[in-house]
Amino acid sequence: MEEKLRALKDELAVYMDLYYASAVLGWDQETNMPPGGAQARADQGATLSELAHRRITDDKVGRLLDDLKAYEESLDYDSDDASLIRITRREYEKRVKVPAELVAEIARAGALGIEAWKEARTKSEFSLFESALQKLIDLKMQYAECFAPYENIYDPLLDEFEPGVDYAQISAVFAGLKPELVKLVAAIGENLDAVDDGPVRGEFTDESQMAFGRIIAKDLGFDFERGRLDLSAHPFTTGFSHDDVRITTRTLQDFLPSCLMSIIHETGHALYEQGSNPAYYRTILAGGASMAIHESQSRFWENIIGRSRPFWEHYHPLLIEHFPQLEGVDRETFYRAINKSYPSFIRVEADEVTYGLHIILRFELENDLFNGRVKVGELPDVWNARFEEYLGIVPPDDAMGVLQDVHWSQALFGYFPDYLLGSIFSVQLWNKLKEELPGAVDQVRAGKFDEILGWHRQKVHRHGTKFTLPELSERAVGGPLDWQPYMNYLNAKFGELYGL
Amino acid sequence: MEEKLRALKDELAVYMDLYYASAVLGWDQETNMPPGGAQARADQGATLSELAHRRITDDKVGRLLDDLKAYEESLDYDSDDASLIRITRREYEKRVKVPAELVAEIARAGALGIEAWKEARTKSEFSLFESALQKLIDLKMQYAECFAPYENIYDPLLDEFEPGVDYAQISAVFAGLKPELVKLVAAIGENLDAVDDGPVRGEFTDESQMAFGRIIAKDLGFDFERGRLDLSAHPFTTGFSHDDVRITTRTLQDFLPSCLMSIIHETGHALYEQGSNPAYYRTILAGGASMAIHESQSRFWENIIGRSRPFWEHYHPLLIEHFPQLEGVDRETFYRAINKSYPSFIRVEADEVTYGLHIILRFELENDLFNGRVKVGELPDVWNARFEEYLGIVPPDDAMGVLQDVHWSQALFGYFPDYLLGSIFSVQLWNKLKEELPGAVDQVRAGKFDEILGWHRQKVHRHGTKFTLPELSERAVGGPLDWQPYMNYLNAKFGELYGL
Repeated sequence: MEEKLRALKDELAVYMDLYYASAVLGWDQETNMPPGGAQARADQGATLSELAHRRITDDKVGRLLDDLKAYEESLDYDSDDASLIRITRREYEKRVKVPAELVAEIARAGALGIEAWKEARTKSEFSLFESALQKLIDLKMQYAECFAPYENIYDPLLDEFEPGVDYAQISAVFAGLKPELVKLVAAIGENLDAVDDGPVRGEFTDESQMAFGRIIAKDLGFDFERGRLDLSAHPFTTGFSHDDVRITTRTLQDFLPSCLMSIIHETGHALYEQGSNPAYYRTILAGGASMAIHESQSRFWENIIGRSRPFWEHYHPLLIEHFPQLEGVDRETFYRAINKSYPSFIRVEADEVTYGLHIILRFELENDLFNGRVKVGELPDVWNARFEEYLGIVPPDDAMGVLQDVHWSQALFGYFPDYLLGSIFSVQLWNKLKEELPGAVDQVRAGKFDEILGWHRQKVHRHGTKFTLPELSERAVGGPLDWQPYMNYLNAKFGELYGL
Repeated sequence: MEEKLRALKDELAVYMDLYYASAVLGWDQETNMPPGGAQARADQGATLSELAHRRITDDKVGRLLDDLKAYEESLDYDSDDASLIRITRREYEKRVKVPAELVAEIARAGALGIEAWKEARTKSEFSLFESALQKLIDLKMQYAECFAPYENIYDPLLDEFEPGVDYAQISAVFAGLKPELVKLVAAIGENLDAVDDGPVRGEFTDESQMAFGRIIAKDLGFDFERGRLDLSAHPFTTGFSHDDVRITTRTLQDFLPSCLMSIIHETGHALYEQGSNPAYYRTILAGGASMAIHESQSRFWENIIGRSRPFWEHYHPLLIEHFPQLEGVDRETFYRAINKSYPSFIRVEADEVTYGLHIILRFELENDLFNGRVKVGELPDVWNARFEEYLGIVPPDDAMGVLQDVHWSQALFGYFPDYLLGSIFSVQLWNKLKEELPGAVDQVRAGKFDEILGWHRQKVHRHGTKFTLPELSERAVGGPLDWQPYMNYLNAKFGELYGL
């Protein structure tokens, strides 16, 4: 078995190298590539994706998995070897259903789509993105069809980011949460002026924002010897091994929290990737398990830590140092300002309460798109109509509406719900963490994060891709995903802020 | 035949995508990669190199080449189809001799070697680079052995950069040139104070240097929509298609010509790459033909144009705008300053006269290394001894001596002679250009470069990789490579400068 396992690992090493090389190409496209490079980059990405796909769906892999079946079953489910074989099998069985040419086509369309999206968003003209988006949706429809019969054509797309979690399950979670969110938004709406975000609006230089964000990322545990922070149109995290993890952000000169909270959010993703077990390097166990688990990490650091009073007890003086114009803004005023809740247009700038509605809108819309109930050409109107229904406001243009997110341009349909599932899970993790590490809040107050990070390393990071969200949830917090603690957290935090 | 040719092009497209993807990884390593990323980058590069190698040495390619033989012979030698088949055959026959594992090993050792070199150069400690260099030489020895029997083990290495040109041929050229260079260096040496480079020594900010260089690159024809300019430890050019060509430079705050001339040099390479025929994209005909031809382009723009009086007639006012401290330095004084000739340590900063000796030293040393006459451990001493013999000065440390160039750390043995061959050829091109475009010098004087670039596009760039140096030389200047015009150019230029 030793030898078969070695052979499987050799195949995976090449697969992972190709995957990481694609990620380098993607990072470069977002941060450095000149406009002319788009077509060649699309071709290169398509080729790498196709070769990676061919590698993991090779008959040799299928045979090795068969040969290793008995060995896998003889092992503890949680063990490295059993998990490596299990996760490889899951990927093999999923990918073997999809033609390599389609994989290449989707990669190519994604690389070109992002350029079309950038232009469309800059000019706020949906029509400039429409044909690229139509093509992406057609291709992802073909992709989903490979998995027929399915209960919902949206399920195979969701499964790409959240293995083993389908539309019905997510719907059930959101169905419980949605009315509670609507109720809280309404209650806050009646007391909107209780919190003022004027202090974080003004004029903030890019340099100060980046310098301040860099210090915080480092304090939280981001290792700049094994990563970078850069600018891009849309903040993201990517990695080319646990030892080279890149995060990006963007700056708004008139709204301080945007850059800062993006950096903390992406740092959360990066800590997860940098915390991957080095022994898993070049195996399929390396990296993060699922996007909801990834978002549990990013949303944990962004919101539960970064938007908390204890955090700003420590960082308020450094804030004033970097932004002397905030001299007169005391700690509490600043804390309140970065937590003002109100209906706004941009998801990544949204407060914690309205955030969930941004996600549920996208989740429902994607489901309607792929089930043919909404056409691509109708998207701007449908977006605006639903936005008004959910948040009571109408985007002034498409850049502030349907064009705001990068995801669809890269063929990432089915990703959005994971932001909310991750937010929900982050609160369960935090509650458990406080139980097991009673001094956690005081540590945040002291600007000490190593034990909190260590807890996440132990409970989440070290497992790599071993477990699905339900499996990891059992192991980390002793029960399934549960939206109630999340809602309790929001009600408590915002009830206090708004005197509800 | 249509169908076979299509099939061959499909194989080449994947090969080229892998080649370009490797180049993206290499560029990122030099410009952006955090230190931790080295091991993973080495693995990724090794995998891409191995897959590219396997692609072009696949039996399928061999069979297609056999099937296409008669078709190729029915065509004009210079035609696109015949050239595509011929160059593919040349690559196939060369690469099929080398095991894929060795290709991967060399790529891996090169990616790790560059990190070892960076540290060694920074600390000026050859011992930190020694074991990486030993490994690289051992691997390249194995590589060369794949081509036995050879006349000289150095030949297969030279052939990588200059197809069809071997040690004996290059030796013959250098044997003619060397005594002439030595004579000119000696003559200048007796009149060293005739030219003063004091004016270009001082304090020059990075920002001004880069801003000025950027304008010049653009004026020469570098298309920033299809390329970038960045900083790296050692200036270089790379490309990921004709539409995405990256150049880098470095700045010395106390010596103005370094950054500026590097930018012009790399712009020369980039113009060649950006000028590749778009119809050759994703075929083996895309890009530059050989490194000597590449250097004929870079050295042409750097020296013949960038270090000429007419050039500075146009740029002197802009120079003063960017560097007000040079207000009192008139055009002629500046022209003389950037052409001061004297024995110096660093090849890339060397004047045109001594430059050739820097190259000949390396050429002879590489030949001795691979023929076992010099051991790796002896390199610093041998370097310093020969440097004193050739240039009359002894490097004060290894960073200024044997560690100065990046090439060996990336397994690029056999590249150096191409700088001098290219310099020689650049003068033949210039002489021919002036014949066919009598207003060329006046155009330089007016800061107009489009016709000069157009001539190079027509004579050199549009051919892509079709021709070897001897073939291209016949077609572009109507005769073989000839060092005499180069020596005449140097004697005339420096004779006048030094009143010889």
